[in-house]
Amino acid sequence: MRPAAGSWDVASFTVVVPRISPKFCRNGYLRSGLVCTATAAPVKDAKATQRVYIFGKNKSQGDASMKNLLGGKGANLAEMSRIGLSVPPGLTITTDTCAEFHSNGRQLPPGCWEEVLAGLQSVEAEMGCRLGDPAAPLLLSVRSGAAISMPGMMDTVLNLGLNDACAAGLAARAGGDERFAYDAYRRFLDMYGDVVMGIPHHLFEEQLERIKAERRVSEDTALTAADLKVLVGRYKEVYRALGKVFPEDPYEQLRLAIYAVFDSWRSERADVYRAVNGIAGLAGTAVNVQAMAFGNMGPTSGTGVCFTRNPSTGERKLYGEYLINAQGEDVVAGIRTPEPIDTLERTLPAAFKELLDNCALLEKHYKDMQDIEFTVQEGKLYMLQCRGGKRTGTAAVRIAVELVDEGLISEDAAVLMVEPGHLDQLLHPQFANEAAYKGDVLGTGLPASPGAAVGQAVFNAEDAEAWRSSGLPVVLVRRETSPEDVKGMYSAEGVLCQLGGMTSHAAVVARGWGKPCITGCADLQVDEHNKVARINGHEIRQGDWISLNGSTGEIVRGKQPLAPPELAGDLGRFMSWVDKRRALGVLTNADTPEDAAEARKFGAEGIGLCRTEHMFFASEERIATVRRMIVAQTKDARLKALADLLPFQRADFEGILRAMAGLPVTIRLLDPPLHEFLPDGEMTEVCEALAADAGVTVDEVYGTIEKLQEVNPMLGFRGCRLGITYPEITEMQVRAMLEAAVRVIRDLGPSSVQLDVMVPLVGTAAELANQEGLVRRVAEQVMSESGGVRVPYRVGTMIEVPRAALQAGAIAKTAEFFSFGTNDLTQMTFGYSRDDIGKFLPVYLEKGILAADPFQVLDQEGVGELIRFAVERGRAARPGLKIGICGEQGGEPKTVAFLHEVGLDYVSCSPFRVPIARLAAAQAAVRSGGSKRSK
Amino acid sequence: MRPAAGSWDVASFTVVVPRISPKFCRNGYLRSGLVCTATAAPVKDAKATQRVYIFGKNKSQGDASMKNLLGGKGANLAEMSRIGLSVPPGLTITTDTCAEFHSNGRQLPPGCWEEVLAGLQSVEAEMGCRLGDPAAPLLLSVRSGAAISMPGMMDTVLNLGLNDACAAGLAARAGGDERFAYDAYRRFLDMYGDVVMGIPHHLFEEQLERIKAERRVSEDTALTAADLKVLVGRYKEVYRALGKVFPEDPYEQLRLAIYAVFDSWRSERADVYRAVNGIAGLAGTAVNVQAMAFGNMGPTSGTGVCFTRNPSTGERKLYGEYLINAQGEDVVAGIRTPEPIDTLERTLPAAFKELLDNCALLEKHYKDMQDIEFTVQEGKLYMLQCRGGKRTGTAAVRIAVELVDEGLISEDAAVLMVEPGHLDQLLHPQFANEAAYKGDVLGTGLPASPGAAVGQAVFNAEDAEAWRSSGLPVVLVRRETSPEDVKGMYSAEGVLCQLGGMTSHAAVVARGWGKPCITGCADLQVDEHNKVARINGHEIRQGDWISLNGSTGEIVRGKQPLAPPELAGDLGRFMSWVDKRRALGVLTNADTPEDAAEARKFGAEGIGLCRTEHMFFASEERIATVRRMIVAQTKDARLKALADLLPFQRADFEGILRAMAGLPVTIRLLDPPLHEFLPDGEMTEVCEALAADAGVTVDEVYGTIEKLQEVNPMLGFRGCRLGITYPEITEMQVRAMLEAAVRVIRDLGPSSVQLDVMVPLVGTAAELANQEGLVRRVAEQVMSESGGVRVPYRVGTMIEVPRAALQAGAIAKTAEFFSFGTNDLTQMTFGYSRDDIGKFLPVYLEKGILAADPFQVLDQEGVGELIRFAVERGRAARPGLKIGICGEQGGEPKTVAFLHEVGLDYVSCSPFRVPIARLAAAQAAVRSGGSKRSK
Repeated sequence: MRPAAGSWDVASFTVVVPRISPKFCRNGYLRSGLVCTATAAPVKDAKATQRVYIFGKNKSQGDASMKNLLGGKGANLAEMSRIGLSVPPGLTITTDTCAEFHSNGRQLPPGCWEEVLAGLQSVEAEMGCRLGDPAAPLLLSVRSGAAISMPGMMDTVLNLGLNDACAAGLAARAGGDERFAYDAYRRFLDMYGDVVMGIPHHLFEEQLERIKAERRVSEDTALTAADLKVLVGRYKEVYRALGKVFPEDPYEQLRLAIYAVFDSWRSERADVYRAVNGIAGLAGTAVNVQAMAFGNMGPTSGTGVCFTRNPSTGERKLYGEYLINAQGEDVVAGIRTPEPIDTLERTLPAAFKELLDNCALLEKHYKDMQDIEFTVQEGKLYMLQCRGGKRTGTAAVRIAVELVDEGLISEDAAVLMVEPGHLDQLLHPQFANEAAYKGDVLGTGLPASPGAAVGQAVFNAEDAEAWRSSGLPVVLVRRETSPEDVKGMYSAEGVLCQLGGMTSHAAVVARGWGKPCITGCADLQVDEHNKVARINGHEIRQGDWISLNGSTGEIVRGKQPLAPPELAGDLGRFMSWVDKRRALGVLTNADTPEDAAEARKFGAEGIGLCRTEHMFFASEERIATVRRMIVAQTKDARLKALADLLPFQRADFEGILRAMAGLPVTIRLLDPPLHEFLPDGEMTEVCEALAADAGVTVDEVYGTIEKLQEVNPMLGFRGCRLGITYPEITEMQVRAMLEAAVRVIRDLGPSSVQLDVMVPLVGTAAELANQEGLVRRVAEQVMSESGGVRVPYRVGTMIEVPRAALQAGAIAKTAEFFSFGTNDLTQMTFGYSRDDIGKFLPVYLEKGILAADPFQVLDQEGVGELIRFAVERGRAARPGLKIGICGEQGGEPKTVAFLHEVGLDYVSCSPFRVPIARLAAAQAAVRSGGSKRSK
Repeated sequence: MRPAAGSWDVASFTVVVPRISPKFCRNGYLRSGLVCTATAAPVKDAKATQRVYIFGKNKSQGDASMKNLLGGKGANLAEMSRIGLSVPPGLTITTDTCAEFHSNGRQLPPGCWEEVLAGLQSVEAEMGCRLGDPAAPLLLSVRSGAAISMPGMMDTVLNLGLNDACAAGLAARAGGDERFAYDAYRRFLDMYGDVVMGIPHHLFEEQLERIKAERRVSEDTALTAADLKVLVGRYKEVYRALGKVFPEDPYEQLRLAIYAVFDSWRSERADVYRAVNGIAGLAGTAVNVQAMAFGNMGPTSGTGVCFTRNPSTGERKLYGEYLINAQGEDVVAGIRTPEPIDTLERTLPAAFKELLDNCALLEKHYKDMQDIEFTVQEGKLYMLQCRGGKRTGTAAVRIAVELVDEGLISEDAAVLMVEPGHLDQLLHPQFANEAAYKGDVLGTGLPASPGAAVGQAVFNAEDAEAWRSSGLPVVLVRRETSPEDVKGMYSAEGVLCQLGGMTSHAAVVARGWGKPCITGCADLQVDEHNKVARINGHEIRQGDWISLNGSTGEIVRGKQPLAPPELAGDLGRFMSWVDKRRALGVLTNADTPEDAAEARKFGAEGIGLCRTEHMFFASEERIATVRRMIVAQTKDARLKALADLLPFQRADFEGILRAMAGLPVTIRLLDPPLHEFLPDGEMTEVCEALAADAGVTVDEVYGTIEKLQEVNPMLGFRGCRLGITYPEITEMQVRAMLEAAVRVIRDLGPSSVQLDVMVPLVGTAAELANQEGLVRRVAEQVMSESGGVRVPYRVGTMIEVPRAALQAGAIAKTAEFFSFGTNDLTQMTFGYSRDDIGKFLPVYLEKGILAADPFQVLDQEGVGELIRFAVERGRAARPGLKIGICGEQGGEPKTVAFLHEVGLDYVSCSPFRVPIARLAAAQAAVRSGGSKRSK
């Protein structure tokens, strides 16, 4: 508690006080009226900027709307007090203060500390005890809490306020329970040392193990009060051995703890969490300083966490767990396996009843499922935290639908309540047949996060990352997880933990990502050091395939087959609300009749991108034909190979047009560089076979391979550059499309086909005009050969080269539609090769140079501006021009919202992302207040 | 002469005339008043669109201002008649008609033919003879002529109008000179067959050789009139053997000849010429139909070409050559070696005097040096053509300066008269020491185009192209060149021809490109078939190195050393006019003190781009240090290598700053992908040595090489992405710059250094802010270490990523200057890899999809729009922001003009292009009427 003289607004003092003695504060003088006058000057600017908000019975300064300023936890504590729940009083230091702290070179802004002290007076008044007062010691928790929850990412200190004198006082106040007081004291020393002083936790752990060995006991609980007093002394010795001084002064404890929480905002693991979760733009974390409630004051005390509904299934039933005689961190840390919440009714009936009532009240109040932390101190319930509960996709949909049925929320609100990512989870694969693997089930744990995961076992986060980046799917197997493991968890298909409950670190983080997770499996012993796990007599070694069913908790031997999910039930109802609201069409990227049919099941309203070349690899015969076409040394030879290719393409197109009958189908002309279809020049036998097949010499094959090699294939001989150089390729493809369309129309009638022929990689109006002329000529030819069948078709272009966006006006004179290819557009607008970005993207995300991977989330500033240009210019040249997007960001919610705002007609994405895009489009429409656009 | 019925505006006839019999025309009825009424209807729309313009004594409808419509030749023929020179009368069909002809499917537009016939009447009236009239046959020349001269590229037919009857009539009219008449007739049959009927010239040549063999003569002139009559019969046999019919009807001859000229506009060789010379946007060629004047009517007849000043040196003295008793094509084709023009004074004194007078008159009239074709028919001078003469750079400058001194033109006009490309020629290398090679001179020819060329001998155009594209410099050695050779000539360093004069095809084309050329070397025998040339007992075989001095005509053995040119004399004076006029600053791209000093000599006003990495390859030790830095496995090892690199960089920067003392020096931070500095992984020994040197394992070296490999290096880990990932690299470079600057300032004073630190490949404002912070921190550190030396420096950025141009406003908040990197900006805006564009660029130029290679001439529509954006947004965010360009187009005249208009502050180009950029900038300023911008 030594404010640096420099941080004071010294000039406004009439009497210069260069340094306030810590004793002033320890003795409470600073909190007396007199000294408060002296602090009035530094606090002066706090008139404008209030940095500390108190909460407690009938005096909360904040409310739930103030999440940005107070963090989620602080805002909700204030709100809970406000609506009358029993919350231990406390104060919240704002998130803006965190930003000031860091920009000030790790100093609290002037006046802030005095605000804290003023707030503390209010807490002390309500609790009837005082910080540092041995006669009635006030103990505090100090916790972080940002506007967006980052579970386990930042630091917490409990039992703050203890020193030798106060520990004795606490024992006295707890009816002489010395064991309780010194247990709290030694826990505080450990946690404070770890979190605030940077002393490794294991040094304290070793002392604990040592005294247990000395006393020949195996459980912590077997240590006596006297043992714990000895332990306290040894813990202090740990501090001293490292040259650190444990601050006996509780105010100094508090000040340093606040610093530590602010520091934790900038920790590497917090940075990684934010990067992985795409969290950006927050000022910092708030600090919540709150009176301690003790769950460890004997058998009528306890602590727990619960959800007002089941976060896995959405079922409307209290869901959670608790530990008797424990502090909160014991539950969350997953070290002891807790009791299910419904047994609380037996153990502490009054507290349970009040908890139920509180849950009902909170759901009504917040109109959403809540995630609650509570402590029971000697029978009395304290609410420690409430927040909107994280949930699985299944739960999100069920809760949203049921809240509408319960009359709590509107359909609009329901649509906004389910996150697009939730649908992503729902659409994750499930096991093809759960009955079939029953013989391979090795054991069962807690179903902590649903879905099916199949991968090879690894035993630490580094291995998970390394294997994943080599393209191997992994399941991360751990005794328990800690925040250091998040990168590894993110790399894994699923997570399996020996320890921990449904609300352990692993469970919360995995659910947030929709990753399958199983925790608390009593039959599992994980030996991380030797990279092996044992379960019911079976060994899982590194690299062994295992399968997790996160919905049932089953751990299954081997690589079990997966099956795609389906839309039905609540989800079907929910999606009908979604479709009523969205203005954007949602099409799909599909290259085969099977994909097209699948996407249609997911609600796709047509095909926005069919890549003709994907089918080239469908059989040996096809790729051989394609290669003959490429190595042809004369135009005649090329025409011959193209003629052989025609029936394949026609059959594919026919299948796709049938699968999408009645809906638009956009087929892109050949796009990739030709070398992608050729064998490697070192594959001598393949080259020789190709030469024989194509009737050319082996040297001509090698010559073609060499000629087609490129330094930067992304910017090379591809897209319409191919069709302009070899018009016969375009001619064949267009002929195949039109002939297929004629067949489908003959069969299904004239309205069954809406063909859009799309020219790729156009950068100049002349390129499109060249290809458009070809397309129309061949189309007319095929139609006249067909004896009068007219095929409705349009000719349009990808807008994927920056120049095309700039020249959209000129291009729209020819183009009947635009489709943004945001993958290429992003590559060229940024100058980022998607294949090479891995060398610097992680650094860019870490340093905050990019807020997100622009290949995942559309860059609205740069790429988005080109899109705006192109839309404006294109529509000015051709009113009513159809405009869509077929890049991979087409299913990304923020991108969809942007494209809604820019006024696109549709997005096209992969089949599995179609429902996500539908939801994102509906949310954008609801948020912008727009109703469904008439189309 | 069968107008297709479909091409007539039949509906406007009151009496339907479905087809006009050719006889009508042959007999002249169509030209009578009566029939003209019938043609009035089709000509009706000609009221709006006059397609034929006549010229001749006192009746020219065109003038010199109508080049676009009449072509250069047509406009100047009209102008010459207009000012009173004796020009054979004729008519010009407009260039627009050529476009109509092609868009009509190779048909003359309605009414056009009738206009031609009407024009012919006027010619016949002046000449006193008529087309197809045996009693007084009118002979015509039919020549192409576009708005921009394309020497030798399009077709010409002479002596048109001859058939058996008219040949006899011509002989009678020539005083019974049958030899003259049948020589004209057989030449006409040959030329008409070749140009109009598509009969290979060599088939006629063979007949000529055959009859010479039969008559046992070696010269054409030894053939008698009787021989020529036989030859005429045999030439007609050539037609018949190929199933072709020689049209005896002169009107049919004329019509088909007009078609042929129009067709020649679209010939491949014309396309290539336009592509090579960057000619675009022309409607087509005009057709000039003109009465023949005969230079081959005996010893008082002749034909010649001349320039009013020497086109090689600019000397004010008639320069040219002529042949007595010859037709014009004999001179231009280079088959006979002609006489120098001054000897004409002796042979035909009256004609010579009139020619001199005409030249003086034309120079006064056109205020420029003229290129003239004339014919003397029996002592009477006819002017056949005049146009601004092509000239070498030396001549262009001298002529411009002397025309100012003669009071003919203003300095502004002089500045516009010299083309930037002219300076390019002046700056081409010269031989280092002409005296030194004298012992190796093999022989001497005509100095047809000046400058020094060194290359390996090849003997045909295909070889020239092939060798060149393998990176080998070649000299093309030919007996004579023809339009088919232009691509090969373009590929060669220089051209050597056994035959031909100073105005032969080879000479004219080579001068146009500023390529050294020697023609008419009597001692040289070129055996193209066996790819060997013999000269004075020496053999030149394919692949032998030879050197050409185009200024002296010397052919020199071996690979003679070259030296850079200098600015002096007339050029110095001219450049002073240039610099008075330009608004754009001209800086240079230079990476070494030597380049910097050289550029300063050429007038560079600072360095716009210094690529730090170029110096990395300057010595074994340097590259070894760079490699140690790259393969470093720890930050410490990297810092150690960087510390070793620092002194090298500092010394380089110091040298450059000294060379440019007082001028701005822009140094770019490390830009290229690191793999460019590493050895190939297959170079085992190098890798092993590197591992030993760097203290890492060989596997770590291979690992680094593999890790740094990229799919699209252009879009990969380079530019500021390096400095952001490895801040220590930026730190070292900035330290080296600042320490160098401190040393220079200590020595030369505070105003000696203007350092601009340039961050490459910025795409987001955050990237620049990151690097700028680093730069400023290190700069302050070095300055404070230096004990008070303040270094004036700015931090700015390349704008070379499309996103940077779009985000210029945000970036300009940090950037103190912008420099457009138009190479990368073009690559990314178009999606063209410069290294891979060769696969499709030729097709794009040929098909007219691109008007020019965008890496040579800035794309104003697309890339230019991004530049406009960036200038507007950058200056809006930071008024007075310094903006320049350092891409390779920075020295390209059209680009410079555009950048002047957009308002850039400077261009930066390679040292040799500095004078060109200065001139282009001055021309842009003069053309836009702007005086020198105050800076």
